[in-house]
Order: sequence, then C-alpha cells, then structure tokens
Amino acid sequence: MDEMHKNKREYVLGVDVGGTKILLLLADKDGQTYFKKKVESSGNLNEVCNIIDDFIEESKIDVSRIEALCMGVPGEINGDGIVRLSIQLDWKDVNVTEYVQSRYRFPVYVKNDVNLSALGERWLGNGENTDHMIYISIGTGIGGAVIANGHLVEGYNHSAGEIGYMLDKSDLSKGLHNEETDFGSLERKISGKSLTDKAKELGLTSEMLFQLYGKHNEDVNKTIDNFILELSVVIANMISILNPEYVIIGGGVSVSMDKIIPIIRDKVSQISIFDTQIKRSKLGGETGAFGCVYYAFYEA
Amino acid sequence: MDEMHKNKREYVLGVDVGGTKILLLLADKDGQTYFKKKVESSGNLNEVCNIIDDFIEESKIDVSRIEALCMGVPGEINGDGIVRLSIQLDWKDVNVTEYVQSRYRFPVYVKNDVNLSALGERWLGNGENTDHMIYISIGTGIGGAVIANGHLVEGYNHSAGEIGYMLDKSDLSKGLHNEETDFGSLERKISGKSLTDKAKELGLTSEMLFQLYGKHNEDVNKTIDNFILELSVVIANMISILNPEYVIIGGGVSVSMDKIIPIIRDKVSQISIFDTQIKRSKLGGETGAFGCVYYAFYEA
Repeated sequence: MDEMHKNKREYVLGVDVGGTKILLLLADKDGQTYFKKKVESSGNLNEVCNIIDDFIEESKIDVSRIEALCMGVPGEINGDGIVRLSIQLDWKDVNVTEYVQSRYRFPVYVKNDVNLSALGERWLGNGENTDHMIYISIGTGIGGAVIANGHLVEGYNHSAGEIGYMLDKSDLSKGLHNEETDFGSLERKISGKSLTDKAKELGLTSEMLFQLYGKHNEDVNKTIDNFILELSVVIANMISILNPEYVIIGGGVSVSMDKIIPIIRDKVSQISIFDTQIKRSKLGGETGAFGCVYYAFYEA
Repeated sequence: MDEMHKNKREYVLGVDVGGTKILLLLADKDGQTYFKKKVESSGNLNEVCNIIDDFIEESKIDVSRIEALCMGVPGEINGDGIVRLSIQLDWKDVNVTEYVQSRYRFPVYVKNDVNLSALGERWLGNGENTDHMIYISIGTGIGGAVIANGHLVEGYNHSAGEIGYMLDKSDLSKGLHNEETDFGSLERKISGKSLTDKAKELGLTSEMLFQLYGKHNEDVNKTIDNFILELSVVIANMISILNPEYVIIGGGVSVSMDKIIPIIRDKVSQISIFDTQIKRSKLGGETGAFGCVYYAFYEA
C-alpha cells in the first residue's frame, strides 16, 4: 500500500526565469528531482511558454501527474500574479499568470524569484526549515526576502524584501535618493553591477576583486572593505528588526564571497547584540526553482 | 439566546507594567472596558501582584469570568515568559509567568510591552486590523514591533523589533557600537532620554524642543531636524524590508510629535518608493493594556 502510494507521486514544475536563462525543474513533495534543464531564453513570454512545452515533452512525464506550475520572475509582482515591472525581462504590467494559465490545466503561480529562493533555501538548503530567516540575493541588483513565523512575508503590496532601496543617512547627503525605475541606494553601492563597474575602472572583473582582496591592491581592498561594511550594517539592522535564526546570502555575487563570509560574520557580531547564523546559499543557482516547487506544494 | 450569550461575556485582565505606574484593565472580546485603573508602583513583583489582587477585588468581578491575565513588561522576555532583562523594572532572569501564575487559576501570559502595544493599536487604534504593520514606540528608549501576515513577529529568540539597536555607518566611525546592557545606537540619538539630555543643555524640556521647532532657536531646529532625519531613515528602511500598510508611532515622546508627523511623512515619501501610511498612536497610554487583552483572546 505504502509502495503503491510512493509510486503515485505527483510533481510540481518549477520555472525560474532569468534575464538570459531559464531553469526548469520537475520535483516531488520531498524535493526529489524527476527531470531538469537549463535553457537559453530571450525573455519573450511566448518563447518562455514554448520552452515549457518542450521541457514537458522531453521529460516524458504523464501531464496528469503535474500538480502545478510555479514561475519565478525577477521584479515586482502583485497578488494576482501580474508582473508590474521586470526590468531584466522588459515586462511591464503583463498578466503572466493568465497568459501561462490559458495553456495548461494545472494551476499556475507567478511569484517574485527572490521570495521563492528564500523558500527553496529554507526547504532544501542552509535554512534548515527554520521559522525565522532572512535571504539576501546579491546579483546584478540586490533583493531580499523575509520568512517569519514559518511563512513568507510579502507585505501589503507584495513588495516586502526590496532591500536594494535601503539607505544610509550619508546616501541622502550624497544625493543617492531612490527612484522606482532605477537601482536603489544600496544597489548603487554594493550590487553586482556596481562591483563590475568599479572592477572595470581597475581593469579587473568583479570576481577578481574578491580573489585579490587582502593582498596588495589598495583600491581592491578599499572596494571590498566598503562592500563588507555596507552589507554588514544592512544585515545587522535587519537582525535588530526581525531576529532571524539564519541570514542566507545567495545570488550570483555570493559565489565569489567564500573568503569574506567569515569577515561579514565577525563584523555583524561586533555591531549587533543578537546571535544569528550567517551562511552562503547551499543550492546556488537551483534555489529559485526548488522554491517554486515548495511554494506550489506548501505555501500556495 | 443571543441576549443570554451576550450577558455571559468573559473578560481578560490586561496589566501594563511600567517603570513607575501600572495600568490595569478588564475588557471583553470586543474591547469593551469593564473596569480600569492606573496605580503607582515601585516595580517590586510581589507588590505588582498585590496591586492585581486589589484591582480584582475593587472591580467586583466574579473571578470565574476572567478568562486570562496578560502582563506587558518593558524588556527582553523569552518564549516561556521569563523576563531576561528589564532595565526599567530592574528584573533579570525572573520567571514572572510562574510567579504570577501560582496565584491564579486562569492562564497567565507575560509578553514584551511594545509587541503588545502593536497588537492593541492594530485592534482598536490606528492599525485598522491590517495584516502588515510596524509599530515604533519612542519613550525613554526606543522599541519596535512587527505585524506580518496578520501576526506578531517575535523572531527566533523573541527579540524581534529591537530597533533601538539599528545603526548607521556613521555611528560606527563615531564609536556608537551596540552593547546589550546599554542603550542602542538609535536610542543614543533619538530616544526620549537623548532628547531630554539635549534639551537640558539648552535649558529646556524635551516637550519644549517640539513646541519651539520651526521658530528662531537654531539649536532646537537642528536637534529636531536631526530627530526627523534619523527617524525617517529608519522608517524608510523598515518599509523597504517589510512593506507594511501602516507605520504607527507611539510611546511617551509621540505625544509631542503632532507638528512633525507630517514632516516625517514627507521625508519618508521622498526617500522611499513605497506608499505607506504613517500615523501617531490613537490609544496613547492604553495601547499596551488593550494589547494584553487582544493577545490573550486572539493571539495566544
């Protein structure tokens, strides 16, 4: 009986849509992967749907075994799954949920990718199923997500976690105000894009900034010291507000941060009175897709 | 039948314990007050219990109609209702719940007073039963509370909302580090105590700082401008993280803030991209006691 039940597993299709690539993943309630694939994409919505169709066909799954589809999208998504603004995908006020839903019989959810990543990391990564967690994604831009009392905090307008707009008094005197269509104050200081810009000035890449840190290049040391300081202050402030068990740092830039995570840990414990475990993401590039699967099974 | 049921109302005893005064309140599920009283208190725990006994007797309520007692305490209280540290009451590692519970047959809850105030303000004050709210209490010190997804966020160690420890990069260069037994960085800049200290230097009271603001005293204007700036940055950052519907400002200092609330609103809307309603507390000194009643009826 139990064996039979096991064989009747149902799956969720997680689709993590990035600016240039899509990760598709079929997985079950336990996070066991049935099939996955990474595909180049222009971000055209019709093309994205064709990629999903091809993936389902290629996976050879009986479509009736797909319980739901959940899509992670970078940007601002409202409670009805309408994408208000995705700069990376060049989508503005697009009802992605309706568009995708019209093609499938199973339910479709469209959510912010960083929020989904937090759920994925908590489920199968370094979040250890905690009820209280902060996830910080440092990629081209900076996004955050809050899990409190065991649930995602999406906020009143589904805009919680937009920590790229966090600022410091000194940003104001420097004129680093926030504007909706632009990078936020924090993003202008420590995002992947700002690191890449700084690295270019020095004839380097952003990865090289982290590799060369602590050696004899003063400009590099100053840049990374500042990155550490800004990020540590943001983390300490979020800890004071939310008292999480874990702070998990993910996103493309986090891959280069191995050497500085312990330094951030020390800095935060110097300036915050609360004990919090600060870790790098464990699932890396698959965090968002697994978050899709978790969301559809457990949070929706 | 309905009438009978109405007459069989049950009550919760809310006890808001401050440094010098206790507010006691018997109210029902709808927030209707049966009896209330404000009493001077030294903060001695046995004395507090005697005050509760006297209050119950004086109220002439049939004790069997008291459903629970909830006590609000300023300080750090763990999940078992043990007061880890209350500087105002000089309690350290005191199992207040056990002590009070031993005297009564109804359940006893002991919680942080600012968290309870947030619940009270949401229930019967300016929070309008929102699911997403931030409460900021500016009294001698500064405390905060977060309501997300309709529930209080207490955090992993019940320390969420300790925004008195929020800091700015420039605080670090000035050596304003956080230490557990001391006022936090933000408290050292804009708490009631810091305002009173500043006012004394000018031969004024903290209330007078707000009254004289915008007139011709440069020191006063500078002090309040700085108060507005620091508070606005903290509010903007909390909004970016949590996207609340309301930010409610309470506590003793808030009583003097009528004139500057619109200025804070303008400042926050300049530096934040999110729409949020910023209001002063409606219930004032009774917020905490009503929060006790709400907690015992609905949140416990």
